[in-house]
Amino acid sequence: MTGASETAFNESEKAGRARRAARLSLLRQEMEAGRLDAFVVTHPPNVFYLSGFTGSAAVLVITKARLTLLTDARYTVQAPQEARDARVKIIRGSLTSAAGEELAHGRTRHVGFEAARLTVSQKSLLDEAAGSRVRWIIWDGRVEAARAVKDAAELNTMREAAAIACSSWQEILPLIKPGVLETDLAAEVEFRMRRKGASGPAFDTIIASGPRGALPHAHASARAVGKNELVVCDLGAILRGYSSDLTRTVFVGRAPKEVRRWYTAVLEAQGAARDVLSPGVSAQRVDAAARKTLQRAGLGKQFVHSTGHGLGLEVHEIPRLAKGQETVLRAGVVVTIEPGVYIEGKGGIRIEDDALVTPNGAEYLTDANRELIELG
Amino acid sequence: MTGASETAFNESEKAGRARRAARLSLLRQEMEAGRLDAFVVTHPPNVFYLSGFTGSAAVLVITKARLTLLTDARYTVQAPQEARDARVKIIRGSLTSAAGEELAHGRTRHVGFEAARLTVSQKSLLDEAAGSRVRWIIWDGRVEAARAVKDAAELNTMREAAAIACSSWQEILPLIKPGVLETDLAAEVEFRMRRKGASGPAFDTIIASGPRGALPHAHASARAVGKNELVVCDLGAILRGYSSDLTRTVFVGRAPKEVRRWYTAVLEAQGAARDVLSPGVSAQRVDAAARKTLQRAGLGKQFVHSTGHGLGLEVHEIPRLAKGQETVLRAGVVVTIEPGVYIEGKGGIRIEDDALVTPNGAEYLTDANRELIELG
Repeated sequence: MTGASETAFNESEKAGRARRAARLSLLRQEMEAGRLDAFVVTHPPNVFYLSGFTGSAAVLVITKARLTLLTDARYTVQAPQEARDARVKIIRGSLTSAAGEELAHGRTRHVGFEAARLTVSQKSLLDEAAGSRVRWIIWDGRVEAARAVKDAAELNTMREAAAIACSSWQEILPLIKPGVLETDLAAEVEFRMRRKGASGPAFDTIIASGPRGALPHAHASARAVGKNELVVCDLGAILRGYSSDLTRTVFVGRAPKEVRRWYTAVLEAQGAARDVLSPGVSAQRVDAAARKTLQRAGLGKQFVHSTGHGLGLEVHEIPRLAKGQETVLRAGVVVTIEPGVYIEGKGGIRIEDDALVTPNGAEYLTDANRELIELG
Repeated sequence: MTGASETAFNESEKAGRARRAARLSLLRQEMEAGRLDAFVVTHPPNVFYLSGFTGSAAVLVITKARLTLLTDARYTVQAPQEARDARVKIIRGSLTSAAGEELAHGRTRHVGFEAARLTVSQKSLLDEAAGSRVRWIIWDGRVEAARAVKDAAELNTMREAAAIACSSWQEILPLIKPGVLETDLAAEVEFRMRRKGASGPAFDTIIASGPRGALPHAHASARAVGKNELVVCDLGAILRGYSSDLTRTVFVGRAPKEVRRWYTAVLEAQGAARDVLSPGVSAQRVDAAARKTLQRAGLGKQFVHSTGHGLGLEVHEIPRLAKGQETVLRAGVVVTIEPGVYIEGKGGIRIEDDALVTPNGAEYLTDANRELIELG
């Protein structure tokens, strides 16, 4: 794998620089339209998207002429290698203070910042160092909006990340049987994702058996899977920064009629959401399609979360597929579609796939079997 | 494991409630001394420390009489189970807005908040909902200061988390040989930690071979380990919320004289830091002990980070063992001691242990062999 994939990595590295340059150029057009002299970016996925830097501590200062990356001495070697088109400054002390000083030295007056990402303390350090000449303008969600629409290279990575999750899932299916610990199933699936090239799980793997399945966000515990129980498995891989997110629910034993009815309703709700997913449709309409299906099955109250969320450099991105979300979906957007029902004391059922909005409709990135699987 | 450990878990659950009650009581004394009517806690590890809730989305509103936990519908079942002594409110929409409304309805005037944890946007929602009667007081680091000193139950968990990291490390040692991929070594060690009960790795495992070792924070890559190379391995486990953090560096082949000299200097620097670690000593003095040792060896410039950091519910906590840190260490504090040297183009050496400050000095929680290991 090393030889071949390193070449591939170098080629895509060159292409990556070109893609980042295009992103910056679009952002600078927006800055000009908004009369911004500078934009301070602090959210790590946004920093990576615009500069290529993968470190955990960085501030990006974007002006018309310059891209400056401020980071600390741990990244002295790594930062210039990754952020080839940025001027890298290694900072001792507060990065936000240093960003403020950078602005004070430049001729910047109108400066955008990410209010939803910067803490009150960081903002106050930034203020102090930049001085009173700077007028701060809340510029939230600009990079996130660009990130929502994926380019071809990003989609290739996301398809691969989805395939890693699906094949790892298939491989652990035979291990799900009475007596196995939830944490051991999580260990097995995470190990397989890693071995297939993932840099890690995209989130704490959820393996929720029996009544624990009624907790939509129960991480794997030391509980042993029992006979005649539902098991909700929610897993994902990070590949070159991009996440996948897959949920399947199986039954250990022969599923009773009631469980089959619930499962069918969730599967139909997922299909209904996917059927309406296409460019020009609002996020809330996709949510409503799933929700109405479950309501008609008498399970509306058991569907306690939204239908899905954007997916990419973060596991939860815009758009949210939820009530009241009027965002119109565009081709290139990747979302999860994950209706579920949660019955206190009994368990949960969730079916989740990653779907790409295409010019004509939608494409599933995850292709694992969606029918109810009865094991053991 | 299930039967026995579930009983143990239930017992410690009761003890956990008592410990959380004591923490709250101390915090309320501080609130009274600071004339606060309420304190809004938003940092997830702080929310867990005070309430027992492990979910990712929550705001805690603490008044003299009440502990209110605001979370969303995904946690309807889980939140009351975990946060037994809190009044749980399930919120649709913004949790910070809901916290503001909670304050507006109460008779709260002086309200503390975590400026270092709250975003500018969240603070503005909080402001708006709480109304103009509330006077906001920055109350950073109070919960963190309490968290720095671990109690006996926390230390037991941390000893276990450290033992999981150490034994997983010992087990993958024979796998480190020319040709093995860094990511595969990371997969193997993470799998073993999981199987030993960890809920996951405490951070992205670092396996940095050859010249990549000169990047102090290089995550495992698809690079194959080569012959006659240093390999830096930095790994940790999360157990019941608490992290361990262990680094060892090995040489694949017979280490040349130069490498042995570097290794000895780092090991001596670590010993020097541990020798001064005791109650009443300042954090900067521990850092200085390691730093001076490396400077005397002519490697001061190659030691590009601080000597260590607090460890507990987060991988990086206070105190920082760094220049200028005057914090005085107390018994019960757990810190990493991790000097290292980084030689561009050649590689890195870091030796890291987790150390507990005891009444008489210090105790290592991690006990893996620290001598230079030559493999293959």
